[in-house]
Amino acid sequence: MANRLSMIVFSGTVDKLYPVAILASGAVAMGQEVRIFLTFWGLMALKKGAGAQLQVSKDYEAMGAEMARIMQEKKVPSWLDTLRTAKELGDVKVYACGMTMDLFQLKLEDLEDVVDGVAGVGEFIEEARQGEISLFI
Amino acid sequence: MANRLSMIVFSGTVDKLYPVAILASGAVAMGQEVRIFLTFWGLMALKKGAGAQLQVSKDYEAMGAEMARIMQEKKVPSWLDTLRTAKELGDVKVYACGMTMDLFQLKLEDLEDVVDGVAGVGEFIEEARQGEISLFI
Amino acid sequence: MANRLSMIVFSGTVDKLYPVAILASGAVAMGQEVRIFLTFWGLMALKKGAGAQLQVSKDYEAMGAEMARIMQEKKVPSWLDTLRTAKELGDVKVYACGMTMDLFQLKLEDLEDVVDGVAGVGEFIEEARQGEISLFI
Repeated sequence: MANRLSMIVFSGTVDKLYPVAILASGAVAMGQEVRIFLTFWGLMALKKGAGAQLQVSKDYEAMGAEMARIMQEKKVPSWLDTLRTAKELGDVKVYACGMTMDLFQLKLEDLEDVVDGVAGVGEFIEEARQGEISLFI
Repeated sequence: MANRLSMIVFSGTVDKLYPVAILASGAVAMGQEVRIFLTFWGLMALKKGAGAQLQVSKDYEAMGAEMARIMQEKKVPSWLDTLRTAKELGDVKVYACGMTMDLFQLKLEDLEDVVDGVAGVGEFIEEARQGEISLFI
Repeated sequence: MANRLSMIVFSGTVDKLYPVAILASGAVAMGQEVRIFLTFWGLMALKKGAGAQLQVSKDYEAMGAEMARIMQEKKVPSWLDTLRTAKELGDVKVYACGMTMDLFQLKLEDLEDVVDGVAGVGEFIEEARQGEISLFI
């Protein structure tokens, strides 16, 4: 089996995108390949400029403001910068879901530069099944 | 290892049920078996007639109306019809969580016809561990 | 591959913590090892005394009160007691995410006694990749 972490990223709230980037970083540090498949709200969150409008999940809203304050104080990099660093340090590929792209009439140039290309769900499953860890986030 | 995708479906919002059906379709197209274990809100969403009342996740409410409009305009089939088609095309089994059934005093005939039977969590884990991809949705 | 179920527990709503405990119980009953990695809101939910304030996910609020009533009536143990029992019956280890601990300046003694220790995300990935099932909850 390939030493690979695959993540289907459906969610588009900032607190759920942090674990995506942190898991990618952790995996790269352990020598793993990382494959990310952005779909639905996870893809919307990667539209150019969307980052500034991302919200904390409503379930944790009450704690969200404190988390944001602490992160700012400790100068924690944004989730997107954390993902960019993971891409610089290891083999991390980010794909946009072709079906979501079609549905919302998006083009690759509408998305942040961390996105490497467009893929179908079948192609992603084929890569994921050869890997060791697959997560839906 | 079996060429199998296992999904534990806990969520019962319509935007999260679409990926279940789309992943099932994609997996079937790649020749994979699919096993789905409905629990908690994911099981409630399969009660007969529940489909019409399903909501978009509150975190994405603001984008939900536009998504619904686009899907209607492009005549995207419902998530349940997408799952039905996947079942016709390949080896897709849908199980209801026995514990949730007991708790809410549900019977198999209370559920949509895509549900094949009732299973315990241990039985599901036993099938999932032999497969290549397991997701919690 | 190790007969192991690994769960990254990001969520901190009571309805999502039940499946963590129930999956742990089911896995232990099937002879599996269980490894749990608490991060973000999942870790916050394990702060001493936090259990009493846990909420149902907002998406299912309308059904939450009925669920709570049924569970009380049927004397279903709390998710935390279910996890405790799983730990007594099998090899279940619960780790707190080191990064979240640092960020919120938490110490091990601030957490419920089910938590065995602190771990880094890389260490957890290394354990998970040797196991058969890995889930993000």
